[in-house]
Amino acid sequence: MGPAINPVRLWQRHEAMAQIGATPAGGVNRQALSSEDIAARRLLLGWAGERGYEASSDAIGNLFIRRPGRAAELPPVMTGSHLDSQPTGGRFDGTYGVLAGLEVLDALDEAGIATRRSIELVAWTNEEGSRFAPTTMGSAVFAGALALEQVLEVRDGEGIRLADALGAARATFPHLPERAPFPIAAYVEAHIEQGPVLERRAAHIGAVSGIQGLRWFEVTVQGRAAHAGTTPRVDRQDAFMAAVDLVGALRARIEAVDDTVRFTIGRMVVTPNSPNTVPERVAFTIDLRHPDGRALHDLTAGIRDCCRMAPGGCAIALRQTLDSPPVAFDPRVVESVRLAARGRDLACLDLVSGATHDAKHLAKLCPTGMIFIPCRAGVSHNEAESVEPGQAADGAQVLADVLLELANGLD
Amino acid sequence: MGPAINPVRLWQRHEAMAQIGATPAGGVNRQALSSEDIAARRLLLGWAGERGYEASSDAIGNLFIRRPGRAAELPPVMTGSHLDSQPTGGRFDGTYGVLAGLEVLDALDEAGIATRRSIELVAWTNEEGSRFAPTTMGSAVFAGALALEQVLEVRDGEGIRLADALGAARATFPHLPERAPFPIAAYVEAHIEQGPVLERRAAHIGAVSGIQGLRWFEVTVQGRAAHAGTTPRVDRQDAFMAAVDLVGALRARIEAVDDTVRFTIGRMVVTPNSPNTVPERVAFTIDLRHPDGRALHDLTAGIRDCCRMAPGGCAIALRQTLDSPPVAFDPRVVESVRLAARGRDLACLDLVSGATHDAKHLAKLCPTGMIFIPCRAGVSHNEAESVEPGQAADGAQVLADVLLELANGLD
Repeated sequence: MGPAINPVRLWQRHEAMAQIGATPAGGVNRQALSSEDIAARRLLLGWAGERGYEASSDAIGNLFIRRPGRAAELPPVMTGSHLDSQPTGGRFDGTYGVLAGLEVLDALDEAGIATRRSIELVAWTNEEGSRFAPTTMGSAVFAGALALEQVLEVRDGEGIRLADALGAARATFPHLPERAPFPIAAYVEAHIEQGPVLERRAAHIGAVSGIQGLRWFEVTVQGRAAHAGTTPRVDRQDAFMAAVDLVGALRARIEAVDDTVRFTIGRMVVTPNSPNTVPERVAFTIDLRHPDGRALHDLTAGIRDCCRMAPGGCAIALRQTLDSPPVAFDPRVVESVRLAARGRDLACLDLVSGATHDAKHLAKLCPTGMIFIPCRAGVSHNEAESVEPGQAADGAQVLADVLLELANGLD
Repeated sequence: MGPAINPVRLWQRHEAMAQIGATPAGGVNRQALSSEDIAARRLLLGWAGERGYEASSDAIGNLFIRRPGRAAELPPVMTGSHLDSQPTGGRFDGTYGVLAGLEVLDALDEAGIATRRSIELVAWTNEEGSRFAPTTMGSAVFAGALALEQVLEVRDGEGIRLADALGAARATFPHLPERAPFPIAAYVEAHIEQGPVLERRAAHIGAVSGIQGLRWFEVTVQGRAAHAGTTPRVDRQDAFMAAVDLVGALRARIEAVDDTVRFTIGRMVVTPNSPNTVPERVAFTIDLRHPDGRALHDLTAGIRDCCRMAPGGCAIALRQTLDSPPVAFDPRVVESVRLAARGRDLACLDLVSGATHDAKHLAKLCPTGMIFIPCRAGVSHNEAESVEPGQAADGAQVLADVLLELANGLD
C-alpha cells in the first residue's frame, strides 16, 4: 500500500484550479493554450515548485513534473491527464487526473518514500480538441500518432495558428527545459467516468480494461423537394420520412445486438428545412461504439445493409468518416487497480471507457491503465459536472497505491 | 362559348414577362414591390394601355385593369392572380393567371364582344409573402381579412418598411387612380396546379372546388444531453430517438386516415446537433392539410393524442401556430368551369387546391372559382417550373368562356 493521501489538500487544489476560467454556472472555460490554460499551468508549476520537483515540457507543450526515483536512469512510471476544458466544461474532467497525480507525489514526499523508478506527472496539451482539432493532440504527438509539423498549422475558430498559441505559452515559462519524447515504463491515468455506471452500481472505483472502438458515419438521404400542399404522398420522394424509415431499420438492427453497443444519431440537417416544403435532402451522423473490434465490424456491415434500402424512392449514401479501433489496457495494470481498491475496501467495477482519453495513445508505448471515479448522474462536458470530495480522495488513494506498486515492482 | 383566344400572343407575353427578374436557371426572382415587380407592372400596364383599358390601383397596390361592360354600374366580374414571385420562382406561378386574364380581355376586344358586366383584371400585391409576410397580402387587405395599417409596418429582411416599398411603386405610376375596395360579382382565377395530379391523370383542366384547410404545429421534444460514448441506452433521454418514435406514431395515425390528407414534416432542428452528444432537444414542424374542416379537427385530436406519449422519458410540447380553414368555392362557378372544358373537348378533373391562393380571400366576397392547368411533374416554387404552350392556351380558352358566361349570365 502507498502513503495516505491528503483529501483536504486534494480538494482545495480543485477549488483553486476551478477559479481559473470559472463560468457563472459553476463550470470552467479553459480551452487549450488559452490564457486560462496557461494560468492553470502556472498554478500547477507553482505547487510543483514548492516541493522542488523537476518540471519540463516538450515540442507540443505537454508539461512534465518529475519526482526522481532511486534508479533515475530507468524509464519512469507516468500519471496525469489534462488541464484544458470544453468551452462549457466541468471542473473535474482532466483536472482530476492531474491533481490526483500531484497529490500522490506529495503524499510520497511527505511520507519520505523513495521509489525505485521516477514518477512523472503529465498535463497533456489539448485533450479536448474543442479549440484546436483533433482531440488528445498532445499525447498523440508524444506517441507519434500525429506529426508535430502537421498540428502546428492547425488554426482555431479565430484563425490563430496552434504554433503561435504554443509560442505564447512557451514564452510564459522561458526557463522550462524542452525534452524529446522519452521511454515510459507504465502509464496510469485517473479520470471521472463521465458516465453513470459506477454511480448506478454504487462502485467507488472503476478498473478500466480498455477504451471502446469508435466509428463515425455520415448518411445522406436524397429525395426531391415538393410543395407540401399540392403533392400527394404517392408522388413524394420525402427525404425526411425516408430518413425516419432508415433510422428505424438501423435501430432494429443495432439495438438488437446487445446493450454494450453505443449508437447515437447526434446531428441531423434537413434541407431546405422549411415547414411547407417536402424535404429534398437529409444528412445525419452515426456515432457507433463497442469495446470489441469484431462487433464493430459486424455492426458496420449491418449499417451498410440498411443503407442499401431505398425508402420512399430516395437515394441513400453512406460514408465512414472515422475509425478508432478499441484499445485493450495492460492486464497487469488493470489487476493492480483491482487489488489496490480491494486493499482499501473500495467497491471496484471492471468497465470499458466510453470516452476517448490520452491513455489511448500511451497504450501503444507502455503498459497502461486507467482509474475511474464516479461523477454525479454521469454528467460531463457540462458545467454541472460534479464529484464528491470523498470520491475524489478514493481515486487518488488507489492511484497512490498503484503507482507505488508499479514504480517499485516493474522489472 | 367565348371568343377564341390567341395562343401565340399569350405565349409571347409569357416570354416577355419572364425576362423581368430572369434567373440563370430559367426562373424568375421578382419579389413583391421590388424593382422587378414594378417593371412587370409597367409591362402589363403598357399592354393594357394599347387597348385603352382603364387602369387603377388601391391602397395596398393591387393593380386593376378594367374593360367596361354595357352595364358599367354593376359590380364587375374579376379575374387575375399575381406578378410577384418566390426568390427562386418559376415563370408561371401567378403570372399565368394575369396574362390569361389579359388575353381574355383582348380576345373579347378583337371579337368586338360587349359584355353586360365589366370585366376587371387584377394583379394582387405580394401573393408570395417571401419578401414581406404574410402571403396573399393584397387580396387579404382588399377583402378586409388583414388591416392595412398593420401590414404597412411589415419590414423585409433588409429592414425596409412595406409602406416605403409601396410608396416607391406608387411614385412610378403617379397618374394611376386609387380606388377604395369595391363590390365584385364573381372572381375566377387561372393558375398552374403546382402539383402533379392533372399531369398524372392526363387532364387538361382542373375545376377547383375549393382550397384545403391548413394547420401548422410546432413540436418540441425535450430530453437530456449526454456523452455518446459513456451513456448506456438505459440512462439516456435521447430527444432524437424520442422524436423518431413520435414521428412513427404520428404517421401511423395520420397516414391511415386517407390519401387526401397532406402531412409534412419539413423542418427539424436538433440541439446541440453534435455527432458525439445525445441530443438534448428536437423541434419539428407539422404541416397538415385537408379539404374537410371536420377531418382537420379529428386529425388535430390525433396529433394531440400522440403527443401525450413520453417516449424514452422525454417531454413533448405541442403548439398550433396556424389555422387556415378550408374554403369551398361557389358551385355555380365550378360548374361553369366544367361546362366550358366540356364545350372545348378538354379533359376536366375536379380537384381541391393544395396551395393557398388569393381566391381564398375573394371567396368571402363573391362567388369564386379557380381554373388549374397542369405544370410539368407538378414542380413549382422552383426555377424549373414548366408549362407547355398548348396547356396555357387551353386554360385561357376555358377562362374566356367562363368569364363571358358570368359577365353576361349573372343576375
